[in-house]
Amino acid sequence: MNFSSKLIEQAVTELNRLPGIGKKTALRLALHLLNRPEEDAEALGNALIKLRKEICYCKQCHNISDLEICNICSDQQRNQELVCVVESMRDVIAIENTNQYRGLYHVLGGVISPIDGVGPEQLNINSLLGRIKNKKEINEIVLALSPTMEGDTTNFYLSRQLSEYESLKITTLARGVSFGGELEYVDEVTLARSLAARRPYEQG
Amino acid sequence: MNFSSKLIEQAVTELNRLPGIGKKTALRLALHLLNRPEEDAEALGNALIKLRKEICYCKQCHNISDLEICNICSDQQRNQELVCVVESMRDVIAIENTNQYRGLYHVLGGVISPIDGVGPEQLNINSLLGRIKNKKEINEIVLALSPTMEGDTTNFYLSRQLSEYESLKITTLARGVSFGGELEYVDEVTLARSLAARRPYEQG
Repeated sequence: MNFSSKLIEQAVTELNRLPGIGKKTALRLALHLLNRPEEDAEALGNALIKLRKEICYCKQCHNISDLEICNICSDQQRNQELVCVVESMRDVIAIENTNQYRGLYHVLGGVISPIDGVGPEQLNINSLLGRIKNKKEINEIVLALSPTMEGDTTNFYLSRQLSEYESLKITTLARGVSFGGELEYVDEVTLARSLAARRPYEQG
Repeated sequence: MNFSSKLIEQAVTELNRLPGIGKKTALRLALHLLNRPEEDAEALGNALIKLRKEICYCKQCHNISDLEICNICSDQQRNQELVCVVESMRDVIAIENTNQYRGLYHVLGGVISPIDGVGPEQLNINSLLGRIKNKKEINEIVLALSPTMEGDTTNFYLSRQLSEYESLKITTLARGVSFGGELEYVDEVTLARSLAARRPYEQG
């Protein structure tokens, strides 16, 4: 594309580096900002710079936080005996949005994936083990990683590491046919596994 | 959505105000920036602030420009006798990308639309008339506005205003079935008008 201005070219180039934003979308966003008051562009630009510069991670659960210990970890109303292990902050938000979980979290920062050069040392696994060792009150770990090969590998690794704590309960999310899903659209693997793992009928 | 950090909440809110960017996409973009080096977020933020703050418009054609007179207007290699009237800078880029047009432009900044409170005074129409009056060399105006009711109204208004210059040729873009388009997918109005406006067959 030929731009008549270096400023717009630069803005488009930078926006274009974001995932899922092509050149045409980038141009549309840049022109949108030009049509808005100057404060809008300033607020957006400063929010992005500030986000990257000042962001902290919770020292306990590694979730994104403004404080050394995040709001979730320091909330004494929450069940301190229950820790849910997730891949990323996105999963924390997804689980929080259900409004059903009242325990704590531990953000691994990824899953074990030798192909991508990610081993257990690159993840926040040691700090999870340390948390369990130091805080005797934790009595259940929920493994809530993605149902992929890498997620399964990480689940296996974690369950091995955690097996020395005999009183610790290790659970994973229930897997099966989605609630409200129609059978004909369920993929074969899920359907076959849901059949194999069938359970007693409960009313309600 | 519940965010564990005010910084990320602010960044998501600001990104979410852009057109076509929902809350989930905004969060994805914000987390992407967190995974990139600090310079990336800074480059993006500063490019957006600088764009809005320092942008100029060409005094002659009202296109976005870094200088008082844009590169296109000041390019003596271009045909100074030909001026293409467009709605916005996006149309300039679209026409420039064809690499076929070597004349100048005039950016109206919109089209006449009484419903939205846009009359001829809100557009760069007076400066177009001034350009034609002062620069005797202009001998053709190409009206390249959108084929909408508002575009047609603006075309009509402009052609009336320009009718006093007898030697001035006024043209519009050719309209009809797209090149390479299949007939069965062409909408009825275009097809009916293309039939009515059929022209002598030319080889090549």
